[in-house]
Amino acid sequence: MSTIYQATASAPVNIAVIKYWGKRDTKLILPTNSSLSVTLDQDHLRSTTTSRADPSFERDQLWLNGKEDEIKPGSRLETCITEMKRLRKEYEDQNPNEPKAISLLISSYKVHIASYNNFPTAAGLASSASGFAALVASLAQLYNLPASPSTLSLIARQGSGSACRSLFGGFVAWQMGSDPSGSDSLAVQVAPQEHWPQMHALICVVSDDKKGTSSTSGMQRTVETSTLLQHRIKDVVPWRMEKISKAILERDFDTFARITMADSNQFHAVALDTEPPIFYMNDVSRAIIALIVEYNRLSVEAGKGYKAAYTYDAGPNAVIYALEENIKEIVQLIVSYFPQKPGEFKDVWGIFGESAADLNTHASLPQGFNSAVAKKFEVGAVKGLIHTRVGDGPRKLGPEESLLAENGLPKTLA
Amino acid sequence: MSTIYQATASAPVNIAVIKYWGKRDTKLILPTNSSLSVTLDQDHLRSTTTSRADPSFERDQLWLNGKEDEIKPGSRLETCITEMKRLRKEYEDQNPNEPKAISLLISSYKVHIASYNNFPTAAGLASSASGFAALVASLAQLYNLPASPSTLSLIARQGSGSACRSLFGGFVAWQMGSDPSGSDSLAVQVAPQEHWPQMHALICVVSDDKKGTSSTSGMQRTVETSTLLQHRIKDVVPWRMEKISKAILERDFDTFARITMADSNQFHAVALDTEPPIFYMNDVSRAIIALIVEYNRLSVEAGKGYKAAYTYDAGPNAVIYALEENIKEIVQLIVSYFPQKPGEFKDVWGIFGESAADLNTHASLPQGFNSAVAKKFEVGAVKGLIHTRVGDGPRKLGPEESLLAENGLPKTLA
Repeated sequence: MSTIYQATASAPVNIAVIKYWGKRDTKLILPTNSSLSVTLDQDHLRSTTTSRADPSFERDQLWLNGKEDEIKPGSRLETCITEMKRLRKEYEDQNPNEPKAISLLISSYKVHIASYNNFPTAAGLASSASGFAALVASLAQLYNLPASPSTLSLIARQGSGSACRSLFGGFVAWQMGSDPSGSDSLAVQVAPQEHWPQMHALICVVSDDKKGTSSTSGMQRTVETSTLLQHRIKDVVPWRMEKISKAILERDFDTFARITMADSNQFHAVALDTEPPIFYMNDVSRAIIALIVEYNRLSVEAGKGYKAAYTYDAGPNAVIYALEENIKEIVQLIVSYFPQKPGEFKDVWGIFGESAADLNTHASLPQGFNSAVAKKFEVGAVKGLIHTRVGDGPRKLGPEESLLAENGLPKTLA
Repeated sequence: MSTIYQATASAPVNIAVIKYWGKRDTKLILPTNSSLSVTLDQDHLRSTTTSRADPSFERDQLWLNGKEDEIKPGSRLETCITEMKRLRKEYEDQNPNEPKAISLLISSYKVHIASYNNFPTAAGLASSASGFAALVASLAQLYNLPASPSTLSLIARQGSGSACRSLFGGFVAWQMGSDPSGSDSLAVQVAPQEHWPQMHALICVVSDDKKGTSSTSGMQRTVETSTLLQHRIKDVVPWRMEKISKAILERDFDTFARITMADSNQFHAVALDTEPPIFYMNDVSRAIIALIVEYNRLSVEAGKGYKAAYTYDAGPNAVIYALEENIKEIVQLIVSYFPQKPGEFKDVWGIFGESAADLNTHASLPQGFNSAVAKKFEVGAVKGLIHTRVGDGPRKLGPEESLLAENGLPKTLA
C-alpha cells in the first residue's frame, strides 16, 4: 500500500475597494497600479481545491466543477502549476534530509487537481481569484512548503491578478511593485479579519442580458486608448491607497465608504473613456447607486456620516459594504425597489428570523428617504442577495473534504 | 401713428463634438475648456424670438412658448437683456447723427420679448442654446447694432454657455479665453455650413424615466469632486480641439468621428467620476453605442474608416453624425433595434419616399453585422428620430413672422 500525497484547501473571494484595471506586463501580470480588497467569508463563498501528486499519473490534469479544463502549454494555469513545482524542487534540493519534509521527490510527479466553486457561475461573481488562490494553497500544502502567503501570492498573481489578494484574510493590499521580474508585486495584509469583523457585505446579483467585455481584454484596451487612465495611475491611486489603509486601521467607515465609491466610479469612468467604450453597469446598477447615495445623504444629515459603500467590478452586480448594524436597514431598502423571489435569501445571521423566507415583507424605507430617486423594478432585476462579511484566508481542509476519489479522478466522475 | 420698433430672429440648435463641462467663473460663465460644435439646420430645429421696444411698456417682459417667464433681478436672462441695452446705449452715444441708425434713444425703452421653440420640450433637446442665441440676435436686430456674431456670442454666453456657439452656422469653436473679464471667451466659426454640407445628423430621442441632474449643477459638482477633470482640461481637450478642427477643414470624417465619440465618452466618464456620480446615458443609449461601434467595425474592415459618430449631451438622447450618403443605412439599422411608431418620421429629403410613413418596414442590417451586439427593444424606447444636417447661423425674419401682436403681447395670448 502506497502513501497518497494529497492536500485540500479552500480560498475566499475578494472584492476590491481600490480597483485593479490595467497591466504593465501582461505575461507576468504586473499591474499599472496597486489595489486593495476585502476578503469575503469562505463560509459563504469559496473555491475548494484538492491536489494530488502520484507517480502513476501520466499528465497534469485539472477538473473545474467536475469538468476537465485543459492545461494548455503557456497558459496561466500551467504557469502556476510549474511555478509551484519549481518551489517544491528548490525545497527538496535545500532539505535533502529534513525530517518534517515529505521524504520523496514528489516535485517530479504529475498532479491531478479538482476544484469546485460553491457559488453558481450565473451569479456573475468572478471565480478566478478564489480559484487560483485555492489552487496555489492546495499545492503549497501538498508540497509542504514553508512559503508565506506573500510568496504564494506571487504565483497566484500569475494565474489571475486579483487572485494574489485571496491569499490573505481581512483587508489586503496588492502592492504593484517596480521590479520588471515581478518579484515585488505581491499581496500584503493591511489588517486581519479580527481587526474589523463588523465589516459586512451585501452582494446584489444583478440580471444582465448583455455579454460584457472580459476584464482581461477590457483592461488592456483601456491601457492602450484611455487618456485618463495614466492620470488615475500616477496621481490618484497612490494617495487613495494610503488614505483607505489608514481608514481601515482606524475603523473609519465614513472615509472607507467615500474612497470605495469614488474608486468604483473612477474605474468605470476609465472603462468608459476607452475606445470603444466599455460599460459594465446597467440601469439596475445605476438605480442601486441612487439608493445608496440617498441613504448616505440622510445619514450625513443625521450627523452619522456614510453608512454604506457600493462597489462594482467588471459586471453589473453591486457589492455593498456596510457595518453589521446597518445591514438590516439596507436589505429592507434594496427589497423595497427590487422585490425578491421568496425563499432566495439565506438569513445566516437570523436578522429577519423565521420571516426571512419572504424578504419582500420586510420592504421599508428609512424615514425621510426620497422614494423618487429610483423606480420600483420587477422581480428578477436583482436576482438574489448574498449577505456575507470580511473573512479569513485560505484554509487547510481534512481528507474528508477531498474532491478526488481514490482512483485519482474527481469524485463527481468516479 | 407711431413707429413700431420690433425685430424677429431665429437661431439654431448646436450639438457639441468637444464637450463643454465645467465653469471657471460661474457668474460670467467662463468655461474650464474650449469646446466645438456643429450647428444644426433651423429648417428643422429652431428658436424664434421677437423683441419690441416701446415707450409705453412698463417693464421688461418675456414669454416662452406663450407662457410668461419672469425676468428675475440678477438672472442670466436679465444679464443678457441689460448687456444688449448697454451695447445699444454705446451705439447711440457714439452715433448721435448717424443716418442709418434708428434716430431715437430706444435703449431706454422697456422691451417685450416672445420666444418659441419649434421642438417639444419632451424631446429632451436643450433649448437654452438656441433660445439665448435667438434672444440676442433679435435684440441686436431691434437695436440695429453693427456687432459681429463673435461680439454677440460674448453676451449669449452669459445666458447659457453653449448658446454662444449658436451665433454661427457651420462648425463653431467656443474659445475658452483667459481674461478674467471674459472678453476673450467667445465663439468663432471654424468652417461655414457650405464647407461640408454633407454632414448630416440623426437625433434619436430616447425615453427616460429618471430625472437627470441639471447640467448647471452637475458640471460644478464635477469641477469640485472629479480627480480626472483637471487632466481632461489641461492635457486632452487642447489637442482634440486642434485635431478635430483640422479634420473638419480637411473633411476627414474618420478622424472627426473618432474624436467626437472619444470626447462624448470622456465627458460621461468625468460625470461618472463625480461625487455622487452623474449618469446621463441609460441602457438604450448604451445599446445605440454598441450598434454604432459594430457598424463602424464593419466599415473599417471594408477599408472605409468610420462612417458614424455618436455623441451624448446631458441626457440619454443620441445624436449620430454621418455623411448624407450613409444616413439611410443608419436609419435602417436603428429601426431594426428600435421599432418606431408609424408616421413619426418626417422624411424631409425623401430618402424612403412614400414608404417613410412606416419606417419599420425599412429595418435592415448591413451585411456581416453581428446582430447580437444589442437586443431588440420595445416600441417607444427610442421615441422618435429627427434627421437633420449642418445649418446656418441666426436668421433675420420678416414682420409676418412676428410672435408679438399689435398690442405688444404674444400672439398666442392676444
